[in-house]
Amino acid sequence: MEIRALTFDTYGTLVDWRGSILDELRAFGAARGLERDWEAFLTDWKSAYRPGMDKVNRAEWPWTTIDVIYRRRLDEVLRARGVDATAAEAEHLNRAWWRLSPWPDTVAGLARLRRRYVISPLSNASFAGMVHLARFAGLPWDCILTAENAHRYKPAPEVYRTAIELLGVAPGEVMMVAAHNYDLAAARSHGMRTAFVPRPTEYGPGQSTDLAPDSDWDVVAKDVEDLARALGA
Amino acid sequence: MEIRALTFDTYGTLVDWRGSILDELRAFGAARGLERDWEAFLTDWKSAYRPGMDKVNRAEWPWTTIDVIYRRRLDEVLRARGVDATAAEAEHLNRAWWRLSPWPDTVAGLARLRRRYVISPLSNASFAGMVHLARFAGLPWDCILTAENAHRYKPAPEVYRTAIELLGVAPGEVMMVAAHNYDLAAARSHGMRTAFVPRPTEYGPGQSTDLAPDSDWDVVAKDVEDLARALGA
Repeated sequence: MEIRALTFDTYGTLVDWRGSILDELRAFGAARGLERDWEAFLTDWKSAYRPGMDKVNRAEWPWTTIDVIYRRRLDEVLRARGVDATAAEAEHLNRAWWRLSPWPDTVAGLARLRRRYVISPLSNASFAGMVHLARFAGLPWDCILTAENAHRYKPAPEVYRTAIELLGVAPGEVMMVAAHNYDLAAARSHGMRTAFVPRPTEYGPGQSTDLAPDSDWDVVAKDVEDLARALGA
Repeated sequence: MEIRALTFDTYGTLVDWRGSILDELRAFGAARGLERDWEAFLTDWKSAYRPGMDKVNRAEWPWTTIDVIYRRRLDEVLRARGVDATAAEAEHLNRAWWRLSPWPDTVAGLARLRRRYVISPLSNASFAGMVHLARFAGLPWDCILTAENAHRYKPAPEVYRTAIELLGVAPGEVMMVAAHNYDLAAARSHGMRTAFVPRPTEYGPGQSTDLAPDSDWDVVAKDVEDLARALGA
């Protein structure tokens, strides 16, 4: 069965969220003469990600975008760390998640892949967040698919099934590309092909997870340009 | 309130479906030495469009893409007009709806608008059909939104509401652009802005509908480039 489309995890796999957010936090602090441990600030902020998504997936919360989950936590972290910010300032800071820099291979690799395949994100971002990130980072998508299209978060089955249905292809005609083994395991369970692209510094120099493939994924590539080569694009 | 996004009807408004499909039917006939009235063939084929969508909107049918609606009707029309075709040939012919030529102003107008606004289709096409049409016709979308995202067809409320929600904006921050007054009336009823772009030959030289705006739409433009000028893009 021929591959027709590729869906990409985005945070970590295609963009350096950690470096980009740290840059914004440090610039925010410098502009106000604030001394804080911004790495700890970010760890604290990011810690809302999985628990919030899990609450949605268990239907304890109604559908809530990751932007709202992050904004709630940001307000808590700002208070806890004694940083005054207006609502407009907090909202601007929260939208840093829409202004993330791509890894050096991302844009060129996607452009090559797009010549041959339909390419789309399949991210836990909000739909609007992914639209704006694509404009910011120059990601040349054919379409946008996110958790918001299914009102569930990865790795919930609905996210992958919704993407396959909307792309109008058989599961085996779509390849999920991610730097995270859990995402590929879920994709494979729905019949999708899988490609692992490690990003060993996504979480900084001390990263201990997802340094290597933990299963026999269909492709293991060094980066997105290497993936394009592997797929003949 | 500032406009942030524009959603576009596509068939008729941005692409010349009638001319494109007639070209494909005539080429199909010529390759087989078939003499048929291809304009009548197309009228007959297209006649399945509104009744099929209405059945979905009344929940008489489960969600059914326009591709499937057209394919069923195509098989009937081929039989009724004595044209033999294999399943693969019929499927290729049906996919002519994914290979439609843009009007001369469409691509340049969209490219200008995209510099300033998020732009998306909001079409009764299937999601996959709109992805492939964008690749074929070079439509530079930020994202793809169609009736399939709501599992209802325009002018059902769910289609407009789903688009507004996914774009993450207030209704008054989105402008619906269409060559069809009914589409703009529905969009306005949800608080969207409206722009009318007449396409007086969409249905051929004898067209009698949608030749002029039938309400005080926010913008009336000659074509998509004229719309870009009107919106300062």
